[in-house]
Amino acid sequence: MGIGIDIGGTAIKGGIVDHLGVIQKERMVITQSQLGYDQVLNDLVLLIKELQQLSPTETAVGIGIPGILSGAGETVVSCPNLNWQNRPLKQDLERELTLEVLLVNDATAACIAEAAFGSTRGRSSSVMLTLGTGVGGGVIINDRVISGAHGVASEVGHMIMEENFYNCNCGKNGCLETFASATALIRYCQKQLAEGVESDLQADGDFDARRIFEAAKAGDSLALTAVNRLARYLGWAIANISDLVDPEIFCIGGGLSEAGDFLLERIRAETKCRLTYPRFAMPEIVLATFRNEAGMIGAANLGRFN
Amino acid sequence: MGIGIDIGGTAIKGGIVDHLGVIQKERMVITQSQLGYDQVLNDLVLLIKELQQLSPTETAVGIGIPGILSGAGETVVSCPNLNWQNRPLKQDLERELTLEVLLVNDATAACIAEAAFGSTRGRSSSVMLTLGTGVGGGVIINDRVISGAHGVASEVGHMIMEENFYNCNCGKNGCLETFASATALIRYCQKQLAEGVESDLQADGDFDARRIFEAAKAGDSLALTAVNRLARYLGWAIANISDLVDPEIFCIGGGLSEAGDFLLERIRAETKCRLTYPRFAMPEIVLATFRNEAGMIGAANLGRFN
Repeated sequence: MGIGIDIGGTAIKGGIVDHLGVIQKERMVITQSQLGYDQVLNDLVLLIKELQQLSPTETAVGIGIPGILSGAGETVVSCPNLNWQNRPLKQDLERELTLEVLLVNDATAACIAEAAFGSTRGRSSSVMLTLGTGVGGGVIINDRVISGAHGVASEVGHMIMEENFYNCNCGKNGCLETFASATALIRYCQKQLAEGVESDLQADGDFDARRIFEAAKAGDSLALTAVNRLARYLGWAIANISDLVDPEIFCIGGGLSEAGDFLLERIRAETKCRLTYPRFAMPEIVLATFRNEAGMIGAANLGRFN
Repeated sequence: MGIGIDIGGTAIKGGIVDHLGVIQKERMVITQSQLGYDQVLNDLVLLIKELQQLSPTETAVGIGIPGILSGAGETVVSCPNLNWQNRPLKQDLERELTLEVLLVNDATAACIAEAAFGSTRGRSSSVMLTLGTGVGGGVIINDRVISGAHGVASEVGHMIMEENFYNCNCGKNGCLETFASATALIRYCQKQLAEGVESDLQADGDFDARRIFEAAKAGDSLALTAVNRLARYLGWAIANISDLVDPEIFCIGGGLSEAGDFLLERIRAETKCRLTYPRFAMPEIVLATFRNEAGMIGAANLGRFN
């Protein structure tokens, strides 16, 4: 058993996760980040204590954070969604708790969940790409999570591909995230529509990424172009990552992974034509097993890939 | 002590390397690759036996290869310089020798030499870029060499940056090697001259990368543009590698590293402006300590980062 917490922009979820990766008990509170760090800290302490009562033998709690941690994993260096900067979260929590506190990036937590119980189980090297509002990542090599000398490894979404028509939230231009996220898909279609391209999407007014995939599957030319563009950049990034660390398997998660084989087959083809050794070094590329629960399951299992 | 061999396109060099990384004895034979695999194999066996007589207590020999090894490190999958494909070199050598044979990519051997005795000594994560005719690489994370699930990790030179005016030897277009090697520098200058750009290089007829750096340092506009272009792509690649694995330090080796701080300062600046977290996650970027002896020193020390 383990306690895993997933701090999101709207909710903090906590679960007791068993040795098979199944969440046995779950608790949730709203993330009141607008009330400041101390309020969220207090809510976190109460949530963790409640879970600890449900599983009194636990000695540690793992916490997934949507932001950047220090190299030693003790401080939240930057977490834009919660408006946190340089917060010593581990220390602040351990003062109030009788548990050891382990912090992890939330995309890395999802990567751990897949490696422990999901699509990449049993593989010693895997890279996860989480395609949602942004693009997150997790890297496991030789059965160890790569967190980096400064704690900023696996920021796959900010690898610079080429010039794009809008800047990334991080301030740079050309980040993978601006080509291969739900936001990227929507903004590309909006721009093409504004330039007079015809599409079934036009009648929809506001449309989301799910609608773009539906239209692409139905043969809408703009939507299909947008999906192919997204797959091209993902294949390009996967090929470059393979040239650097050559993992056994890539795992695609996040909301966009709901598009399934329609997306996966395109990513595979775009990867293969950019690999240096496509005949003998093509990595497996698969869909993630877990969805919203991935963060909790991974956070409860941080010890496995240390 | 250890025995390290470096197989190059023109010479096979072997050395007895002491525990400080100093080559105590060295032997060399011409690489007769035009006479076929068996001839090179035979020359290798004789060279290794000679070294073994000089240091009879050795139990293993490390061999750096300018090519791709299988994931298990037993077979030379591809070595264009020697015209080898799928050669079971480890097995073929061990049949003739009383030593264990360990194979490694030559750029990785150089990376190991730096990590054991050179510029990246004492750092648990480092990435080496070898800038010569091509661009080679080596990646060490958590004190382990990353060789990859299919043996093709650290092929940094084949990460695709963007479209370039000539194709890479590997068949792809846009590889880092075509922007950031000696070949890249020369071809870019040749192309600009052919298009009528004026430069002191014009009077030289044939010129090499060393001459381009000299001209750049003397203020020649074309040469300076070429060097800045090379530094831009290296900074871009280093930033992307940092976003993925966030190593503590990068080490620049190979012939182009002779340009020293003139090149290094440009690479640092181009890296910094592309990093996602330049304020707290800027990696160190330094010059390599070793030159031609790096392969032997690294090959003799493969056990250190396994």
